[in-house]
Amino acid sequence: MQGTSFESDKLIRFHHCDPAGIIFYPQYFILFNELVEDWFTEGLGVSVVEQVMRERVGIPMGRVECDFLLPSRIGDILRFVLRVARIGRSSMTLRIECRAGDELRVKAQLTVVFASLEAMRSVPISADLRQRIERFLE
Amino acid sequence: MQGTSFESDKLIRFHHCDPAGIIFYPQYFILFNELVEDWFTEGLGVSVVEQVMRERVGIPMGRVECDFLLPSRIGDILRFVLRVARIGRSSMTLRIECRAGDELRVKAQLTVVFASLEAMRSVPISADLRQRIERFLE
Amino acid sequence: MQGTSFESDKLIRFHHCDPAGIIFYPQYFILFNELVEDWFTEGLGVSVVEQVMRERVGIPMGRVECDFLLPSRIGDILRFVLRVARIGRSSMTLRIECRAGDELRVKAQLTVVFASLEAMRSVPISADLRQRIERFLE
Amino acid sequence: MQGTSFESDKLIRFHHCDPAGIIFYPQYFILFNELVEDWFTEGLGVSVVEQVMRERVGIPMGRVECDFLLPSRIGDILRFVLRVARIGRSSMTLRIECRAGDELRVKAQLTVVFASLEAMRSVPISADLRQRIERFLE
Repeated sequence: MQGTSFESDKLIRFHHCDPAGIIFYPQYFILFNELVEDWFTEGLGVSVVEQVMRERVGIPMGRVECDFLLPSRIGDILRFVLRVARIGRSSMTLRIECRAGDELRVKAQLTVVFASLEAMRSVPISADLRQRIERFLE
Repeated sequence: MQGTSFESDKLIRFHHCDPAGIIFYPQYFILFNELVEDWFTEGLGVSVVEQVMRERVGIPMGRVECDFLLPSRIGDILRFVLRVARIGRSSMTLRIECRAGDELRVKAQLTVVFASLEAMRSVPISADLRQRIERFLE
Repeated sequence: MQGTSFESDKLIRFHHCDPAGIIFYPQYFILFNELVEDWFTEGLGVSVVEQVMRERVGIPMGRVECDFLLPSRIGDILRFVLRVARIGRSSMTLRIECRAGDELRVKAQLTVVFASLEAMRSVPISADLRQRIERFLE
Repeated sequence: MQGTSFESDKLIRFHHCDPAGIIFYPQYFILFNELVEDWFTEGLGVSVVEQVMRERVGIPMGRVECDFLLPSRIGDILRFVLRVARIGRSSMTLRIECRAGDELRVKAQLTVVFASLEAMRSVPISADLRQRIERFLE
């Protein structure tokens, strides 16, 4: 049984694409970053500005696994779906799928770490935030 | 026993870094792309311009696995080391490590597919190119 | 008297910002590109995909003048306003302003050229397209 | 009579280029940023890391004027030439030209401001730094 997912539609733009006419794959990671940002703001009710700029806690990437199954082109609208696969003491693993209609284009698993930006040391996820994140657990 | 590796030093620049003062991780994939480009030109003796622009064969990314072990900052010089882990009929898996001195910062495994850019269909690696690539097999 | 303007709100995101915590200025040009893309699609009723990918006509940048008056930070929402300052045979000059509330942050003047992508030669703006663009003339 | 110029060759790479096969113009501004960074380090003998990360003084862009005269493609090597057009109390104007052989591709005039990153207020250029910069005055 699956928990809530966070979803967002993204338009593939001219500036995402390379001389082959398809999205240049590092751009997917920038889009994932937007997705996670929107999930924090809209899904978890946490201000990224507050967190990053004032509390100086960030979520640097720890590990990425990503399969690029089918190419995407300018003008495609992809639905990005995010779920939480695992939540640990100070890290969590997110599962992201990108689809155009029924077609699965990209699937990724991202492990992010909660870290203090000054010391670059991991910090525990607060009880309150954990509770909000758990709503999106698979 | 290890075959030849392809190595390149990269300076971490202001524009690679985010408000946390560390390299924004999608920038690593752009640096990997530069590395593979340089490996083609200097290591394999293959012109990327010829291949992409005239023969219209590209090497879109199939799968990425990447561990970000330690953060990097502006002014760091990282040594990128590339080896070939596997070479198939129309794809290959590259192993990349990034170090600052002895410190392993990032390690990645990238599976790229040789594909015709018009049809976006995989094409076999030519015998000549295969031979050049095999020099870098682990 | 002013003609119609095309307007769009843009959120300044983590990935737009640099180690100084403010938007890295080249990102403004990427946002301008998104704005022009949206103006074509929504304001002019012209498909960018059609134009770029099938007709192979692009609008490379000819000249940029841009004043960065005040810095913007993560979480800021900027209103981008586009108007047409001049329309020539095969080029046009766009005027863009970015505001946070009443505060003018950035103003730019961009001259783009209609060009065939294969020959990289300028092509005249069609009568139909000219008419649509003229609605946005200052 | 012209003072010293700072020069650097830049390879146009796959990731700089767009579906039209030419460099996507915002990438020029990222290359300009690299050029200015290298000029500080190599031409002025000033560490960008020291300046940005420890003294917290940056050089945000104030004004850009840039003409894109001819397109550039993957594999092109452009010579970037930087000179100082004007040096004020807390800002300076740089003149940059990019050529492929004798062909002038891009010319730009950039006005950067010395600013404290915390207060985002302009700071005067020190006497020592001014002297170093003056060597590159036109």
